[in-house]
Amino acid sequence: MKHFHDMKFSSNFNQIPISFIREILEVANNENMISFAGGLPNPDFFPVEELEKSAVEAFRNNGRGLLQYAGSQGYLPLRKWIARRYSSMFDAPISAENIVITSGSQQTIDIMSKLFINAGDEIIIEKPTYLGGIQAMSAYSPHFMPVDLLADGPDLNAVEKICRQYSPKFMYAIPSFQNPSGICYSNEKRNELAALLRKYNLLMLEDDPYFELRFRGGQQKPIFCQAPRQVCWTGSFSKMIAPGIRLGWVILPDELVAPFVRAKQSTDLHTNNLSQYIAYNYLTNNNIDLHLQTIRKAYRQQCTDMIKAINTHMGNNIKMNTPDGGMFLWLKLLENIDAGELVQKCLSKGVAFVPGKSFYTDDSGCNCIRMNFSNSPKQKIEAGIKIIAAELKRFSIVEKSY
Amino acid sequence: MKHFHDMKFSSNFNQIPISFIREILEVANNENMISFAGGLPNPDFFPVEELEKSAVEAFRNNGRGLLQYAGSQGYLPLRKWIARRYSSMFDAPISAENIVITSGSQQTIDIMSKLFINAGDEIIIEKPTYLGGIQAMSAYSPHFMPVDLLADGPDLNAVEKICRQYSPKFMYAIPSFQNPSGICYSNEKRNELAALLRKYNLLMLEDDPYFELRFRGGQQKPIFCQAPRQVCWTGSFSKMIAPGIRLGWVILPDELVAPFVRAKQSTDLHTNNLSQYIAYNYLTNNNIDLHLQTIRKAYRQQCTDMIKAINTHMGNNIKMNTPDGGMFLWLKLLENIDAGELVQKCLSKGVAFVPGKSFYTDDSGCNCIRMNFSNSPKQKIEAGIKIIAAELKRFSIVEKSY
Repeated sequence: MKHFHDMKFSSNFNQIPISFIREILEVANNENMISFAGGLPNPDFFPVEELEKSAVEAFRNNGRGLLQYAGSQGYLPLRKWIARRYSSMFDAPISAENIVITSGSQQTIDIMSKLFINAGDEIIIEKPTYLGGIQAMSAYSPHFMPVDLLADGPDLNAVEKICRQYSPKFMYAIPSFQNPSGICYSNEKRNELAALLRKYNLLMLEDDPYFELRFRGGQQKPIFCQAPRQVCWTGSFSKMIAPGIRLGWVILPDELVAPFVRAKQSTDLHTNNLSQYIAYNYLTNNNIDLHLQTIRKAYRQQCTDMIKAINTHMGNNIKMNTPDGGMFLWLKLLENIDAGELVQKCLSKGVAFVPGKSFYTDDSGCNCIRMNFSNSPKQKIEAGIKIIAAELKRFSIVEKSY
Repeated sequence: MKHFHDMKFSSNFNQIPISFIREILEVANNENMISFAGGLPNPDFFPVEELEKSAVEAFRNNGRGLLQYAGSQGYLPLRKWIARRYSSMFDAPISAENIVITSGSQQTIDIMSKLFINAGDEIIIEKPTYLGGIQAMSAYSPHFMPVDLLADGPDLNAVEKICRQYSPKFMYAIPSFQNPSGICYSNEKRNELAALLRKYNLLMLEDDPYFELRFRGGQQKPIFCQAPRQVCWTGSFSKMIAPGIRLGWVILPDELVAPFVRAKQSTDLHTNNLSQYIAYNYLTNNNIDLHLQTIRKAYRQQCTDMIKAINTHMGNNIKMNTPDGGMFLWLKLLENIDAGELVQKCLSKGVAFVPGKSFYTDDSGCNCIRMNFSNSPKQKIEAGIKIIAAELKRFSIVEKSY
């Protein structure tokens, strides 16, 4: 019996789309399921023993401190570690004072939205873009203005046109190995976009969780290096260490730090202190660059394995990118094929992936598929692709017979 | 140089009041400061060694699992533990399916607000009420309808009047050892309020973090036991185990579970998995009731010590409650004394507390003070109260000389 409390939901809540990924996560986590659906890092590389050791040391050195309430901005030594790493990597002055520790970059998106979005405000997004980002921002009822993603980054003419006609509160973008498309903005595009941000004083939330996962090609700098007053750069320990510790960070322009902290405080007081101390201990006692090298090498191989399997089994009717990093392949099927129907058939055969529509706010992308390659060993990749290929073939025949 | 991004904040964000408590937390955490300000549990009782042991076991038994992404509703064994504990304690059927694990009850308030509040919606609150609750809800711009707290609970005539005239989205209340007042609703008031909730089908967020901290008098049941379809009951491991692990839960009516999980998901994907596994291991391998007995006994003593010190040093011009649990005393000074000015003087002498105004939405409570007794040993309580008393005396003389 319903009690009608659900008739009273806020209009904002009603805007949040359901996550296909998380809806099927329970199914996809079934051990017999071959899942290319979740954006899951490869658990083989979780530094379990090192983190156990760090947990013990954190408890022994700071037990009572780490178990108490703490400041909303985050654990200072961890903020300093982040500042040091990226100051040196980008040859740019980054202060721990500009960094806030969040419960992962999903929370960064939520809090940025809380900070800026009134219902109806224009927000520029990539087309397609991260489903979780769409969800987080939707909870504040923005007017999404999607901009096409080209092979080297977004259509900047479209961005500039929006800046001229509207007053977008911010642009949300994932410039490195984008989720879901795998696209990485070229250096030229990064420069041009930074110039645009400065010209229009357009704020950008640069969501960069895959930045450290480049496995081919030369290193790039985030856009925030060129427009630090217009860019909030958010990173995540989920892909560098492990997602279960729920830790990310954001580097903010000066005037946004205190407001961001206030909004964070109203949301959950502060980020998990235990995780922050453990992560800090882990990062100072282990070589994170060596660890990242191992991950990158494995992901490059997994990516290659998946591309090979697709080329072998799925034939020529598929367009696909060759990403230089990250965790995803983005497939385009023939125009008339509905990936939403295809995934239902595949799920019943024990294989999961995410239909493209989830990554659009305008119901396009129906013939696209996002494939995660980082969470499956070669044999499962091979077996799963075979099953998808068989279903796709059957599917195409049925489609044609109509 | 300002870049005017802060001119673009959402109207909701601009509603969030600054937390006096968290603003001074850094000062108050200074080792030389005597702080009665934060709502801090006594760190002497944090089970540091037990949690260290649980962390080691959790990593060894489930390392890769606990470090991966997880479902948004929370770790099932932990939800089952909560369901078992309170089903048995309240002799009521509680299913793990109705429980969501949150990053503490602050997040429960945020997500309930996200779920229900459109700008201007009526929300019934106690007067005074928890500052963090005001902050969390303010971020959604409700129309607060404060109801006076009497010695045995809220003015129910006022609640009913509001239900007749308006359509409040929910009532937010802290029935056990309320923050800041220390008031505990009588059984009669609980019954009557439950009847009101059922009569008007009014939803209530029953925030019960101090429920397990009763140190005097007979056990009561939460209001949700009598109106499970109208009440979301939220509890916290911050006071049972430790705040730094950022874990709480909420028990929801059936139809609210999926929507709450969806809103939670959009906010931060899921609660810290590492903490959930550690807490579950700790709870199953230790006697939590024995642990709570120790805490209760200590808090009763600390409460008594503080009351004694206040009676000895601060004289008769103060009204004060004698709470049966929780962590706070609530002091009323003479009408003409501004606790906001008093705290500035005391801070400069090394003592912190929270002026009452922070707990009201209508600028009242200026002559009130919230004193936390759980985080200071007897000597500090004695020393701190002496300093406040001296400042208060000086303050009163100046006031009189005006």
